[in-house]
Amino acid sequence: MSLAEADRSIADIMAELGQKARIGAKALAIASPEQKRTALITAAGAINAHRKKILAANAKDMEAARDKGISKAFLDRLELTDARIDGIIDAVRTIAELPDPVGATIAEWDRPNGLHIERVRTPLGVIGVIFESRPNVTADAGALCIKSGNAVILRGGSDSFHSSHAIVECMLDGLHLAGLPVECVQLVPTTDRAAVGEMLKGLNGNIDIIVPRGGKTLVARVQDEARVPVFAHLEGIVHVYIDKSADLEKAVAVTLNAKMRRTGICGAAETLLVHQDVVTTHLKPIIEALIAKGCEIRGDATVMSLIPTAKPATEQDWRTEYEDAIISVKIVESLEAAIAHIETYSSHHTEAIIAEDPAAVEKFFNQIDSAILVHNASTQFADGGEFGFGGEIGIATGKMHARGPVGVEQLTSFKYRVRGNGQTRP
Amino acid sequence: MSLAEADRSIADIMAELGQKARIGAKALAIASPEQKRTALITAAGAINAHRKKILAANAKDMEAARDKGISKAFLDRLELTDARIDGIIDAVRTIAELPDPVGATIAEWDRPNGLHIERVRTPLGVIGVIFESRPNVTADAGALCIKSGNAVILRGGSDSFHSSHAIVECMLDGLHLAGLPVECVQLVPTTDRAAVGEMLKGLNGNIDIIVPRGGKTLVARVQDEARVPVFAHLEGIVHVYIDKSADLEKAVAVTLNAKMRRTGICGAAETLLVHQDVVTTHLKPIIEALIAKGCEIRGDATVMSLIPTAKPATEQDWRTEYEDAIISVKIVESLEAAIAHIETYSSHHTEAIIAEDPAAVEKFFNQIDSAILVHNASTQFADGGEFGFGGEIGIATGKMHARGPVGVEQLTSFKYRVRGNGQTRP
Repeated sequence: MSLAEADRSIADIMAELGQKARIGAKALAIASPEQKRTALITAAGAINAHRKKILAANAKDMEAARDKGISKAFLDRLELTDARIDGIIDAVRTIAELPDPVGATIAEWDRPNGLHIERVRTPLGVIGVIFESRPNVTADAGALCIKSGNAVILRGGSDSFHSSHAIVECMLDGLHLAGLPVECVQLVPTTDRAAVGEMLKGLNGNIDIIVPRGGKTLVARVQDEARVPVFAHLEGIVHVYIDKSADLEKAVAVTLNAKMRRTGICGAAETLLVHQDVVTTHLKPIIEALIAKGCEIRGDATVMSLIPTAKPATEQDWRTEYEDAIISVKIVESLEAAIAHIETYSSHHTEAIIAEDPAAVEKFFNQIDSAILVHNASTQFADGGEFGFGGEIGIATGKMHARGPVGVEQLTSFKYRVRGNGQTRP
Repeated sequence: MSLAEADRSIADIMAELGQKARIGAKALAIASPEQKRTALITAAGAINAHRKKILAANAKDMEAARDKGISKAFLDRLELTDARIDGIIDAVRTIAELPDPVGATIAEWDRPNGLHIERVRTPLGVIGVIFESRPNVTADAGALCIKSGNAVILRGGSDSFHSSHAIVECMLDGLHLAGLPVECVQLVPTTDRAAVGEMLKGLNGNIDIIVPRGGKTLVARVQDEARVPVFAHLEGIVHVYIDKSADLEKAVAVTLNAKMRRTGICGAAETLLVHQDVVTTHLKPIIEALIAKGCEIRGDATVMSLIPTAKPATEQDWRTEYEDAIISVKIVESLEAAIAHIETYSSHHTEAIIAEDPAAVEKFFNQIDSAILVHNASTQFADGGEFGFGGEIGIATGKMHARGPVGVEQLTSFKYRVRGNGQTRP
């Protein structure tokens, strides 16, 4: 920050950022698909070319973080390596090659009076992304916003400031070469936390959507304080239900993967529901597989009686996202009881049913109101990349506008184009 | 209101209404298409059967309104006649026969790992509709919400309370016969204005969307105070642009219809922009046609010099929704100047271009960010019925979720259904 900037209030700095973003958004909204693709391909090349500079900036962030005595998990998220930079480059290139969503026709039809109506995608405007110290979000979010024709204001964790700054410089190279205003991607130039408060107020109408990426504390603050719409999920209390028609092999493999592949992601299972008719056949093999992988079991009375090492599950367990190698297990007397449990305790993120009976699957799919419902597959597929979106800016559990993985299509709105030949309304 | 109810606070009454609505919404979300159709067909039949009762209730409202010395325009909106009741019955029947949006597949695709992913429509939940004294909104909004699987809380103008109540009774007959909870459609049982404030706060999370239907004062209050998303438009500053390639006959017919068919609706034109190259050929015939229909002209210097009866347009005229037989007229030097004017002054509702040059139309369609863009047809087609939606709960100018006419599809969200055969994530 320059001395002149230090003299200005955070509110002024942020308001100006908002005005610039709106100007960037207007240009980006009418940019050609080729311009946006060029910007991203160039940015990916610049990240590759400036690899050493990015790693040096990251080393500076890492050193400062270590000096502050920050946790190992945090340092792991902050650290960039050559392999991680390769991952960032791949992600930006993948997004560059996605079909351009802007201008795509979502629906079209003719009216009896000869009017032809089309509904076509348009950008949303300006997206504010507030994230914790994971430098890759800078590139992912920047690329998804450019592709969808939206300007972005990035506010990264203060501990990743230098890393994020070095990556943003590469995004700006791309915008510049494509003839697009550099205001399309802006990194908040101050680590003052008041900047977040300003973003949540919407920068005088110059932020259209806020996307928080980080832990529950961040997401809760954003959901609570934001005066603009938010795409987010507070938590992922994800269920796997083993129906009485479940195939044993699928039940074991899917539950194990849903819980243990990675325990810290939002699509990881937290609660296992097992139909009482398959307790004798299915419960033990599933639980044993989980225990063999190091998972702690917290069960209801029946589970406790069958699994000697299980701890008792309390009411609080059904409401808990462990983000760890722990699972709560309950025996249910019917599919309906499983649905009722899920509708009571779920965070409406992702739920799976393991079943061979199509009627059970349909009932589960129809009656549960979660963003993602999965049949005979792992809940850890709840991810924009796995959905084929080429990336995601986050996963939303709200029902307004975006739901589930938020990719480039979900970052668009639409408008109507009506074509006539002189029609007047009677 | 019973004496017991009078003793309770408005906040308590409204909170209970919210809880009941949520219960209704859960039942309606999983109701079959046939149940919803039956509810609406039965409701339409009940409105027909109870016509005398509805007219008597309306007479009571009209008498009270007259005693209060209320304006003629207001009384006209409040009054029900046999013909208007026929219109209400037709609207409910039309909505009943629309394809059911809930469960409809919006998109589906396969992943390389064999997963099949579908995006299907789901209801939003509970819609709060706040409207002024037009009793037909009771039936329209109720029918659109039932069809889209949403419970609705209706808060009509206090002057139409008896009329709305009589119509809601008929909707309840329909729900009852279809085996659906009567909590799906609730009329706020008090005319206390504090009830609106409670709705805007969201009834403890039991209202998902607010739709205001009425004048600017109502919409502005709702947009300002609502803590839940709002589908609305504050105003319709609608433009008609006559390109240099415009066909004269179409230009005259469309402008006349866009301005004068009905001057009080949101899709009525307020500003006419004319390309300088066709001032000598097109301006006079268009203006003369408008004047012949009783329209006042407010023009820029060129218009003033050519049209003796024109008044001067001030800066404020470009920002004004007249809702009356007045039009502001400006000569522009280019298509780009027309686009710049519209992007500066428009309320982003509806804009029309009259042109024979396809390149001009494409530029207009691409560069203007309004909900509805029209080529060679009247802006007064900006209407859910005219779009083929079978009705509308309103028109939205926001870019989140719904935009343009809000019909049953726009009253839905979606969820993902993922089908596998044992897939786990590597």
